Amino acid sequence: MTSAPISLEEAAKTATLFKALGDPTRVLLISIVAASEGHEACVCDLTEPTGLSQPTVSHHLKILTDAGFLSRTRRGSWAYYALVPGALERLATALAT
Amino acid sequence: MTSAPISLEEAAKTATLFKALGDPTRVLLISIVAASEGHEACVCDLTEPTGLSQPTVSHHLKILTDAGFLSRTRRGSWAYYALVPGALERLATALAT
Repeated sequence: MTSAPISLEEAAKTATLFKALGDPTRVLLISIVAASEGHEACVCDLTEPTGLSQPTVSHHLKILTDAGFLSRTRRGSWAYYALVPGALERLATALAT
Repeated sequence: MTSAPISLEEAAKTATLFKALGDPTRVLLISIVAASEGHEACVCDLTEPTGLSQPTVSHHLKILTDAGFLSRTRRGSWAYYALVPGALERLATALAT
């Protein structure tokens, strides 16, 4: 070995992050947020492109937020989701530390 | 939107790649390969650190190979697995094209 592989505990944590992205709806949601102005989108703008109900969209957004890929801000009656800078890029390097 | 999000078909393909990494054993295996000399490891070196049987290790390595993260070369009686350059990095950008 030229460097140390990650521990089993770190592997389990990292696998949880990948699992959060291992779903077509969540990949689509994060892609829409990434493509939006300021890398931020209102939950009200995410139901139509996914063809899903708002509770279902909110459920998937919660998984992405809990995993640290999105941040959530409430403004008025709507929740806005923004891409957490560097979170996706860190995933690739998490495997090789 | 400032750029186009990915299509539902692309989202499904990308989700399959993330799913391949959404498992602690596979994260550990790819991390060991990444930490090995030349980013390559013999299947015979991957059973002991994972504590799994060789058929189980080979099963997980096949999933990682099919997903395009590892390449497989046979030399003598052993199969060697190498990290496919750029495959992990492409994952992060796959979400924002």
